[in-house]
Amino acid sequence: MPHLHVEYSDNLKNLEVDRLLLRLNHALVGSGQFAEELDIKSRAVAMASFRVGVAPVERGFAHLKLAILSGRSAEIKRQLSASLLEVLKEAVPGTPGLDIQLCVEVIDIDRDSYSKVHLPG
Amino acid sequence: MPHLHVEYSDNLKNLEVDRLLLRLNHALVGSGQFAEELDIKSRAVAMASFRVGVAPVERGFAHLKLAILSGRSAEIKRQLSASLLEVLKEAVPGTPGLDIQLCVEVIDIDRDSYSKVHLPG
Amino acid sequence: MPHLHVEYSDNLKNLEVDRLLLRLNHALVGSGQFAEELDIKSRAVAMASFRVGVAPVERGFAHLKLAILSGRSAEIKRQLSASLLEVLKEAVPGTPGLDIQLCVEVIDIDRDSYSKVHLPG
Repeated sequence: MPHLHVEYSDNLKNLEVDRLLLRLNHALVGSGQFAEELDIKSRAVAMASFRVGVAPVERGFAHLKLAILSGRSAEIKRQLSASLLEVLKEAVPGTPGLDIQLCVEVIDIDRDSYSKVHLPG
Repeated sequence: MPHLHVEYSDNLKNLEVDRLLLRLNHALVGSGQFAEELDIKSRAVAMASFRVGVAPVERGFAHLKLAILSGRSAEIKRQLSASLLEVLKEAVPGTPGLDIQLCVEVIDIDRDSYSKVHLPG
Repeated sequence: MPHLHVEYSDNLKNLEVDRLLLRLNHALVGSGQFAEELDIKSRAVAMASFRVGVAPVERGFAHLKLAILSGRSAEIKRQLSASLLEVLKEAVPGTPGLDIQLCVEVIDIDRDSYSKVHLPG
């Protein structure tokens, strides 16, 4: 924890995914909400099969899902969401001819049943 | 919002994924629950590594996960779930020699920490 | 239900995914929590784009997400989580030069809006 998932439509051709993940992780470190930087586990998946709405218009999206252990306040979650959206906006500029939606969602992980083990290399 | 995820085992050989996504989106538009058709963001992923149960039987599945902003009633969620399952059943017919499970799940997105930006093309 | 998702960084080179899925399913059958073995639907995805933390260190992870119908006790969830972590630890041994995190999360599926159909082959 935290776990960050990035899903994006594969018509976002210029997205530098590795750079985005690093910047998102830096934003999470900078939030001061997480004890250790190595706890932040982020991944990104390009979606080859997607459909936004029903109109015959070229559209794309990027969606972040941040999963954190339960117990943080609504205000903290709002701040985390907003700061990740800022990073995402920098990484995905507006593109002529492509309608893009960027979203960030924060979800709780049930703290009580979360298990983890760390195997240092 | 809404976000729709389709996961399916890649032994559903005849699934027309693009057509399925469009039909699912039409079903969501038709529900009257979502203000704008372009809000509906759907994606599908074929699973190459999967295992259903433990018996040595050829099995497959398709699983829909609809994520909507919190606040809708249990009755609305049941209706959405049922209408998506109908679309899925049309797209995935019974197949001799393959045991198939089709499922639909509806989950809430925490409305308070959901962030979004729209970049029209 | 249950649905089990395995996500792992693709630098876990020696992970035998099919074997892991079968063992995880056996652990779930052995828990006695699920009526029929065929209800257990597991899948695994290797993540090619990932970033753990911000330090320039070789790191990897495997993350299990078990989704079960709502209503089970916290104690049952803890037991399920712990038993899946045991299986995961067996499948992912410590690796010199690679810092690995293994995690298990248990989430509820809203029972009320869950729809399913079974198409025997």
